Amino acid sequence: MSGSFPADSVGLVRPHIQVFEEPLHLDCGQVLDKYELIYETYGELNAERSNAILICHALSGDHHAAGFHNQADKKPGWWDSCIGPGKPIDTQVFFVVCLNNLGGCNGSTGPNKVNPDTGDLYGPTFPVVTVQDWVKSQVRLADMFGIDVWAAVVGGSLGGMQALRWSLDFPDRLKHALVIASTPRLTAQNIAFNEISRKAITSDPEFHDGRYFEHNTVPTKGLMLARMIGHITYLSDESMGEKFGRELKTDDFNFGYGVEFEVESYLNYQGKRFSQTFDANTYLLMTRALDYFDPAADVGGDLVKALARATCDYFVVSFSSDWRFSPARSEQLVEALVKAGKNVSYAEIEAPHGHDAFLIPTPRYLAIFSAYMKRIAQVLSL
Amino acid sequence: MSGSFPADSVGLVRPHIQVFEEPLHLDCGQVLDKYELIYETYGELNAERSNAILICHALSGDHHAAGFHNQADKKPGWWDSCIGPGKPIDTQVFFVVCLNNLGGCNGSTGPNKVNPDTGDLYGPTFPVVTVQDWVKSQVRLADMFGIDVWAAVVGGSLGGMQALRWSLDFPDRLKHALVIASTPRLTAQNIAFNEISRKAITSDPEFHDGRYFEHNTVPTKGLMLARMIGHITYLSDESMGEKFGRELKTDDFNFGYGVEFEVESYLNYQGKRFSQTFDANTYLLMTRALDYFDPAADVGGDLVKALARATCDYFVVSFSSDWRFSPARSEQLVEALVKAGKNVSYAEIEAPHGHDAFLIPTPRYLAIFSAYMKRIAQVLSL
Repeated sequence: MSGSFPADSVGLVRPHIQVFEEPLHLDCGQVLDKYELIYETYGELNAERSNAILICHALSGDHHAAGFHNQADKKPGWWDSCIGPGKPIDTQVFFVVCLNNLGGCNGSTGPNKVNPDTGDLYGPTFPVVTVQDWVKSQVRLADMFGIDVWAAVVGGSLGGMQALRWSLDFPDRLKHALVIASTPRLTAQNIAFNEISRKAITSDPEFHDGRYFEHNTVPTKGLMLARMIGHITYLSDESMGEKFGRELKTDDFNFGYGVEFEVESYLNYQGKRFSQTFDANTYLLMTRALDYFDPAADVGGDLVKALARATCDYFVVSFSSDWRFSPARSEQLVEALVKAGKNVSYAEIEAPHGHDAFLIPTPRYLAIFSAYMKRIAQVLSL
Repeated sequence: MSGSFPADSVGLVRPHIQVFEEPLHLDCGQVLDKYELIYETYGELNAERSNAILICHALSGDHHAAGFHNQADKKPGWWDSCIGPGKPIDTQVFFVVCLNNLGGCNGSTGPNKVNPDTGDLYGPTFPVVTVQDWVKSQVRLADMFGIDVWAAVVGGSLGGMQALRWSLDFPDRLKHALVIASTPRLTAQNIAFNEISRKAITSDPEFHDGRYFEHNTVPTKGLMLARMIGHITYLSDESMGEKFGRELKTDDFNFGYGVEFEVESYLNYQGKRFSQTFDANTYLLMTRALDYFDPAADVGGDLVKALARATCDYFVVSFSSDWRFSPARSEQLVEALVKAGKNVSYAEIEAPHGHDAFLIPTPRYLAIFSAYMKRIAQVLSL
């Protein structure tokens, strides 16, 4: 750690790679004989291995949740607002693990990696993985650390789905599931947005049925559109209005179809930047994992029944202006948890930022999140 | 009219074309020396020419608002639910005019028509037109009919913007403005959706900078995506949920990126159908007209001040589940109208269909709409 980083930062961190050689049987019927997961850790694992927290990432996230990779880094990890000394997930108390999911594009085995069986890039041949598959792959990471029971599995959005799935598939291996800005399943509208994003990618002529690397290209325009569509759903109408209003780039209308308004400029910038760093096949895979997630489906659509086998406690948080996964979706989960007789704490946080609010250090959010984590530490005598 | 159509239908109708030879000066600075408007009429203009109603269409609408073009027609005009004998806009009482706007693609002068000055298709050289330009062009249609004063100018969505603009730019030429499911200006989120739709079109390689006809092609995929994006914003999350839920096309997951859910199939179908009939350049133009609309901008953003010059009465309607132009936007308009000392009747209709609700015959909507139109007829002794 270096003095040049803020005192509440985990400071300099570096990723590690773990190879798993035991075959992983996936929901789709395919088997991955071997796979790698890239991960980071923050804080120290105690002797009892009882203070471990697993962080699960969302659609475009990765293993770099907190701290900096080098002194020149301008931006810390994606959840630095909540992970660090004195922050809600206090690294003076907890040992934190965050990985890039299987099928991701930031270092774990995924479409942009070489298939050891063929020597070629996986590309579109990489299997469609589900949230259940991810949890299975993460169990092995826990085993590798010798962590029998996570103090908590924590995630926002798609990450929250993983926390929920952990609690159902491996109930003995976590004490708490923190499900933030998430949902027990997508609505038709959510699926519709995902479908259009995928369509934008697959109808880009540079997509080449997913074999774009073989053609020395990437479907930049499609990926850019996909990200722009996604981005609208991460922000609230209100926050976009506050940020951009109807401000023009130039003083007056140009009477053309180029960028005129600030909001157009912002979306174009965000879309372009994303398209230069994210893998298109991974984007398809992540959105499909979202679509498929529906733990209640296994038991005829009865969420209460699906939750019966869980034994952990739950912490559910929603944000007032989140219209991607609205508070109503969290309330649906909370109601089912209560009916299933589980311990659940729920808070709806007043916040203007839409879905992105789970990444933003709103005081009440941090306070409630901190309080819950402190209770975990207390009960576990950490 | 034929006996094979419902009794409350205007029956068989046919479009007419009117050529205007007087130059039209547009907001963008360009001049159209000559243009054509295609229109339909329903009902009879009375001797005093006092019973005329102008219907203004929305983004993808046209002049065919009611009735059928031939006996085999399966679908009537786009607002047949509200126009016809005994319907809210009662054609036994009123003379109804509906046109395809300048820049449209269904018969009026627009990008898909030949520029008489060059002998070539306008294509991308067709000027960007504004709601104000449309109103100016519509005034000439009124003149052609000898209609000095419309009993009402009526429109939903972008059509409502035209009704509002009529009331400000030609206050003496209408008695009532009916502004339905509309807004006094787009929000940043609205503009963002439009921008992504335009981007989808312009980044389709078949777009060829708008000169697709010269390349014997059309940007089908881009237009399809644009329509799919738009379509999500016309429906509510609730109505999509009721219509499709998470129903699958086949019995089980296919673990691929093709169409899996009913909602994907529906959107693909709608998008494809639209891309086969609508002109891409017109889509760009219509969305830009939406973006630019902001009557308050002329007077420093003060909507109350902008409304001062109006003399007509207003009828404003919003729909509870409309998140494209939410009730809050209509309330903003109503509040400004009240502050400006105008007569305004306002109703928020409870309806699950989202923005599309303005096209759907919800009983309370029809009842309130009918009542207002009856009052117009009464005051004008029709």
